[in-house]
Amino acid sequence: MMFIKSNASDFSEKFEELLGRGKMDIAHVSAIVGNIIEEIKTQKNAALIQHITKFDNWTPSSDDELKISTESMSKAYDNLDTKLKSALHLAYDRIKLYHEKQKPKSWFDTEENGTILGQKVTAVDSAGLYIPGGKAAYPSSLLMNVIPAQVAGVENIVVCTPTPDNEPNELLLAACHLCGVTQVFKVGGASAIAAMAYGTENIPKVDVITGPGNIFVATAKKMVFGDVNIDMIAGPSEIGILADDSANANHLAIDLLSQAEHDEMASSILITPSQKLADEVKVELENWLLKLPRQEIARKSIEERGAIIVTADMDEAIKLMNDIAPEHLEVATVSPFDLLPFIKHAGAIFLGHNTPEAIGDYVAGPNHTLPTGGTAKFYSPLGVEDFMKKSSIISFSQKAINEIGQECALIANTEGLTAHEQSVRVRLTK
Amino acid sequence: MMFIKSNASDFSEKFEELLGRGKMDIAHVSAIVGNIIEEIKTQKNAALIQHITKFDNWTPSSDDELKISTESMSKAYDNLDTKLKSALHLAYDRIKLYHEKQKPKSWFDTEENGTILGQKVTAVDSAGLYIPGGKAAYPSSLLMNVIPAQVAGVENIVVCTPTPDNEPNELLLAACHLCGVTQVFKVGGASAIAAMAYGTENIPKVDVITGPGNIFVATAKKMVFGDVNIDMIAGPSEIGILADDSANANHLAIDLLSQAEHDEMASSILITPSQKLADEVKVELENWLLKLPRQEIARKSIEERGAIIVTADMDEAIKLMNDIAPEHLEVATVSPFDLLPFIKHAGAIFLGHNTPEAIGDYVAGPNHTLPTGGTAKFYSPLGVEDFMKKSSIISFSQKAINEIGQECALIANTEGLTAHEQSVRVRLTK
Repeated sequence: MMFIKSNASDFSEKFEELLGRGKMDIAHVSAIVGNIIEEIKTQKNAALIQHITKFDNWTPSSDDELKISTESMSKAYDNLDTKLKSALHLAYDRIKLYHEKQKPKSWFDTEENGTILGQKVTAVDSAGLYIPGGKAAYPSSLLMNVIPAQVAGVENIVVCTPTPDNEPNELLLAACHLCGVTQVFKVGGASAIAAMAYGTENIPKVDVITGPGNIFVATAKKMVFGDVNIDMIAGPSEIGILADDSANANHLAIDLLSQAEHDEMASSILITPSQKLADEVKVELENWLLKLPRQEIARKSIEERGAIIVTADMDEAIKLMNDIAPEHLEVATVSPFDLLPFIKHAGAIFLGHNTPEAIGDYVAGPNHTLPTGGTAKFYSPLGVEDFMKKSSIISFSQKAINEIGQECALIANTEGLTAHEQSVRVRLTK
Repeated sequence: MMFIKSNASDFSEKFEELLGRGKMDIAHVSAIVGNIIEEIKTQKNAALIQHITKFDNWTPSSDDELKISTESMSKAYDNLDTKLKSALHLAYDRIKLYHEKQKPKSWFDTEENGTILGQKVTAVDSAGLYIPGGKAAYPSSLLMNVIPAQVAGVENIVVCTPTPDNEPNELLLAACHLCGVTQVFKVGGASAIAAMAYGTENIPKVDVITGPGNIFVATAKKMVFGDVNIDMIAGPSEIGILADDSANANHLAIDLLSQAEHDEMASSILITPSQKLADEVKVELENWLLKLPRQEIARKSIEERGAIIVTADMDEAIKLMNDIAPEHLEVATVSPFDLLPFIKHAGAIFLGHNTPEAIGDYVAGPNHTLPTGGTAKFYSPLGVEDFMKKSSIISFSQKAINEIGQECALIANTEGLTAHEQSVRVRLTK
C-alpha cells in the first residue's frame, strides 16, 4: 500500500501512479474482439453458438435455446427467500423513484414574432443491457440497468448474460422477473455486444448498449460505438475517501475494503490531513482483512493499489481528490456539505459519516454504474438520459423569418453555400 | 435520383439503400489513424510539425508557431464587413440564448428521515473543438461548438483547425475573436484529435472533444473515446422532408439542394403522399440546379443519393421517415405540430412552410451539429450537456441508514460481498 505524505520528495511520482490507475490496454485484445464482432455480423447465431461452446462450455441446440424462458424467471422469483424478495423490491422502488426524478422533459419557448424553439426528448426504441454472468452475476446490476431504461420509456429491452455450463444464476433470473424483463439471452462477452449491436436471427438489434463487463466487453462496446450508442467504457471499481479527525477509522477501513473486495485491480484511496486518522485506518485495515471471506482479493488490491495520503490541509486533500476523480467518493468530515462546492470530479459523492459507499450500490436510489479510472472528469453516472435522445424543435412564422432571414442569408453566402442562402431568400416577403 | 412509390415491387430493396446511407467504412483508415495517434502520443509537437509539413504544405519553425496570435484574430474581426459582423453577432446572441435555456441544473430532494439524494452538474475542465479548415472553414461551426462549451462554463477551451499553406481562414479568425476564444492551434486531421486527447508541449490535454471532420477525424475521435469523451461520430449531411399538398415545390427543391450542395455524399429525401407535389419538386430541382455555383456537387449528390418517395398517406410517410431518422427533418404540411407527437427520430425538426433548414444552420439558435446516418435514433444534437457531467449526491442520516440498512446488507451478503455488508452493518444503531 502507498502510505505517504503529500510533502514527501517522491510524492509527485507516486501520485502519477494513482492517476494512471485502471487504464485498460485494449490494444492487445482489439484484434480478437474485432474478429468476434465480424463473425457475429456475418454468421449471427451460428457464430454465437460456437462462441458459447468455446467459452461457456455448453452447446445450444437451436436458436430458441439461446433465450431464457419467462417461466424459469418467474419460478426463480417465487423461490426467493421472503426477506430477500422484499429487500429487492425496496431497492427496485427506491431506484425507480430516484430515476424518475432525473427524467428530462421536452421543452419549448416562444418569441413574440411567432418563433417556437425547443427540444423534444424521446426514448430510444430499444436498449441492450449486458449483465456479467456466472459467479459475478449481480442482481443489483440488472436493476441498475433495467430501471433507467424503463423509466426512459424504452419499448424493447434486451438482456444478454453468459451462463457457464448452461446454468443461469437464479438470483439474476428472479431479478429479471421482478423487473418485468422478458427478452433474456444466454450470451456473454464480446459476442453478446456484437449480437445486440447488429442483431441475429432472434436477438434484436438495439440502439443503445449499457452494462459492465471485462476488457473484452469494454473493447467490443468501444468498437460498436457509432453503430449504436453506449453508456461508457468502465474499468475496475474504486473508492476515494476525504476524511478529517471526526471520522471513524474502523468504518473507513471497511469502506476502503468494500471496493478492494471486488477486484484485485480495484483502487481504494484515503486522503486526509490527519496523520492520526491515517495511522488508525492502516491498523483497522489489517483487522478487517483477517475477517473477510474475500480476503485474498481484497489484500492484493489494497497492497498493490491502495493508498493513504496525508496532506497539509483539507484544501490540498480536495485538490488531489479532484485530480483522481474517483468513481465513488466518501466525504467523512464533520460538515461534509461545506466541501461539496469544491468537489469537481467524482462519479458519486457520499456525504457524511452515515453514508457508506455500499448503500449506493443497492438501495439508496442513484445508479451504481459510475465512471472509473478518472473518467468522472467527463462521464456521468448511468441514467435515464442514456436511454433517451433529443431533437431540436424549430418553427418560424413569416414575420420571424422576415426579421432575421437577411442575416442568415448573408452568413450562408459568405460561407459559399448559395442554396442555403436561396432557401431562406425565397421565403422572405420583405 | 430514386423516384419511387412506396407500393412499388422493388421498394423495400431500394429503401434499404437509403437506410444504409452515410455509413463510413472506418476500417480501412484505422491503421493509418492508429499510427498517427501513436506518433503524437510519443513525439508530440515534433510529430505534429511533420504531419503539418506533409498535409498542410508548410513547416512550423517552433512550437509557438503552432498557435494563432490573438492579434491576428482581433485584426480579422476589425476587418469584417459591418453587415456580416452584425449578422454574426445576431447569430452569437441567439445561439447563446437558446443554449442557456438547455443548461441542466444541479438538483436534490430530501426525505423526512434525513436522506438527501440528487445530482451535481458541473462543467468539464477543458474542451477541445475541432473546426475543419481551408475552403470548408465555416465560422458558423466555430460558434456552434464554442457557445455550448462557454454556456456550460468550461474554463479551458482549445480550438484546432488546419491552415493549408499557413493561411488561416480570416472569417474563422474573426469568429474566434467574436467568441473570445484565445487558444487556437493550426493543427488539423487525426493529429489534432490526438494532440487534444493526449496533450503536447503547448496544446493542453482536454476532457471532451467535439466538432465535425472527415473520415480521419471521425476515426480518430472514435479511437480516443474513453480517454476523453466525444460528441458523436458524424457523417455526411442530410435532409428529410415530409410534405403535403400545401407545400411550395419550389421551396422544397431548394431546401433539398441546400444539403446536396454540401457534399456529394449528402442525402436529400422527400417523402410525401402527394404525387403532384413529388412531380413538381422533381422539375424544380432541375431548375434550381442550373442556377447553383455548386451545381456539380449538388447534382451528383441528388442523382446518386437523392430520393422522392410517394406514399399511400401521411402516416406511412412518417413511419418511413422515422426509419430513416434524418439529421434534418422539415415538416412542410398545413398543420405541422399535429404530426410532432408521431415523429420519433430526427436531429432537428423544422416545422412549417416558413422554416427552411438553413435558418437552423446559422441564426435560429439551436445547434447545427446533429446526428447523421440514422444515428438520430440514439444521438442528440450537440449541446451544453456535452460539456458537462454529473455526480450523484447521497447523504444518509443515522435514522435513514437504520431504516434501510438491513435490506442493503442482505442484498450485499447475497451477492457474496461481505465487506459491503459490513460497511453498512457497522453503522446501524438498531
